[in-house]
Amino acid sequence: MSDGFVTLAEIEKARTAIGETVRRTFVDGSPSLTEMAGVPVHLKLEHQQITGSFKLRGASNAIAQLTDAEKARGVVGVSTGNHGRGLAYAARAAGVRCIICMSKLVPQAKIDGIMAQGAEVRIVGRSQDEAQEEVDRLVADEGMTMIPPFDHRAIIAGQGTLGLELVEQVPDLGTVLVPLSGGGLICGVAAAVKAKKPGAKIVGISMERGAAMHACLRAGRPVAVEELPTLADSLGGGIGLDNRHTFAMTRALVDDVVLLDEAEIARAIRHAYRQERQIVEGSGAVGIGALLAGTVNSSGPVVAILSGGNIDMDQHARIVAGEDVDVAREAA
Amino acid sequence: MSDGFVTLAEIEKARTAIGETVRRTFVDGSPSLTEMAGVPVHLKLEHQQITGSFKLRGASNAIAQLTDAEKARGVVGVSTGNHGRGLAYAARAAGVRCIICMSKLVPQAKIDGIMAQGAEVRIVGRSQDEAQEEVDRLVADEGMTMIPPFDHRAIIAGQGTLGLELVEQVPDLGTVLVPLSGGGLICGVAAAVKAKKPGAKIVGISMERGAAMHACLRAGRPVAVEELPTLADSLGGGIGLDNRHTFAMTRALVDDVVLLDEAEIARAIRHAYRQERQIVEGSGAVGIGALLAGTVNSSGPVVAILSGGNIDMDQHARIVAGEDVDVAREAA
Repeated sequence: MSDGFVTLAEIEKARTAIGETVRRTFVDGSPSLTEMAGVPVHLKLEHQQITGSFKLRGASNAIAQLTDAEKARGVVGVSTGNHGRGLAYAARAAGVRCIICMSKLVPQAKIDGIMAQGAEVRIVGRSQDEAQEEVDRLVADEGMTMIPPFDHRAIIAGQGTLGLELVEQVPDLGTVLVPLSGGGLICGVAAAVKAKKPGAKIVGISMERGAAMHACLRAGRPVAVEELPTLADSLGGGIGLDNRHTFAMTRALVDDVVLLDEAEIARAIRHAYRQERQIVEGSGAVGIGALLAGTVNSSGPVVAILSGGNIDMDQHARIVAGEDVDVAREAA
Repeated sequence: MSDGFVTLAEIEKARTAIGETVRRTFVDGSPSLTEMAGVPVHLKLEHQQITGSFKLRGASNAIAQLTDAEKARGVVGVSTGNHGRGLAYAARAAGVRCIICMSKLVPQAKIDGIMAQGAEVRIVGRSQDEAQEEVDRLVADEGMTMIPPFDHRAIIAGQGTLGLELVEQVPDLGTVLVPLSGGGLICGVAAAVKAKKPGAKIVGISMERGAAMHACLRAGRPVAVEELPTLADSLGGGIGLDNRHTFAMTRALVDDVVLLDEAEIARAIRHAYRQERQIVEGSGAVGIGALLAGTVNSSGPVVAILSGGNIDMDQHARIVAGEDVDVAREAA
């Protein structure tokens, strides 16, 4: 495999590889956001994916590409939750042992979600980097295969299958709003969408509190960014100082990046509930948040990817009740 | 077409006729209900159907069977909401004029939902029977075709496509829990499921406040039942004293009927939100309510059909916040 950008051919191959495991999620029109934006707005309901997020796509593809010997030794991952959950499900579906390592910052609901999928969970340190050290040990000592959350060709290609669906489901799409963290989703979607629709715009949305990729793009190279508590907790964590794929692809393929504050993310979660009848986590609601904030300009139809739904339901209930949720204080 | 029960062949034909218009909705396992019931419990997520309920299936099939001349004159329906919405969408998709007549008991959210689909709405009287008189006038004076909400072969066959999906999605199903009102859904599902799985049990769930079909089954014939305000408002209304299909089919094919009080329905809506991350209307939650009430006995896997999601979101927010919602008082 070349070191160039992930290709349409790899994404199409991924679709064949994961077709049996992964849902082709639905797209709904949004009357309220359409009225607000002045262009048709569609929502890709990826929070209804099995395991509750798009992460299953990449994880399933990564496991599909293992050799039989690698499958026999098992897989490990470090995860803020959704990747671990997707990887656990994909591994079990393929009959492969799976250990997930994660930091103490991860909400209990996400830990429970991963254990429910049958994976072993190891909680290590207060950052993804510390959890990564345990992964490295399992790889070195036990010959397991590390499946990284985003900076990996098979992961990016797997997430790109969502982009293939989009261009079929919304043939006239003009702009795609994609939650942006490490960049696995946005790079896959951008590669697929731009190969099919060169004129389409791809906009990444992050939270202000710890927007790692945004800081790297401004610096012109991967830089370390402090991880902070946020309602969009699935978008936390760095992109890796030795980033191989997603930094370069994001820089080349993503047209714009928008940042949201915590109140805008909370408002997006509320809107998703009240107006769209969808239960979406903060990270999955940021596309709606960008539309509500009026920061999206598009001459053609907009698609916002609702990427995940694994929110703690106590938190969700407080947010939709209109309470001012101070995640920084909650995490302290 | 014979006057016997709707057949598997009619349902399979309906599937072909409506395939492009209707979603094959997903099925999720429910860990919490599985633990509670002691057998695997699956949820058919039909509230994620286009227009927010299963009613689109039957309406699409009924319109698909019209002649070109009938299509040119248009269709009319009387509806508590979801049928009207499905009919409006199906008509617009087929380029057919549609007028929906409904009573003043119908919540505003449902009226808005129908108008958003492009149908004309006429609000007449305080019961489905009074709205029906306006429909009869449109049929007599303007040559429009009435598409009834349930007691019609094409409607029953269309709803039956949901049953075909179930036996494919949960091949070992033992019991199907089906919201029960006029019987269109349960008769279609029972005909499909029992043709494919003769040992499967079909259980209908209604609310105590105005359970028309249940009263008819006990009387041994169609009888008039007073319509009352209920959280399961989509299950309100009579089965028609001149019922032609659904009474006989329900009597023959449905194994049991369970009734729920309003507190049990509210609890089911809350459970769907907190544990299943689904926004479901009262009528769509009754299968969950029967499981929570411990009234379901099954030796094999259970499927609960979450049939609709068109709840007023103010009401939903009050219910999930744990408020005691007195629908009788609200309607007064």
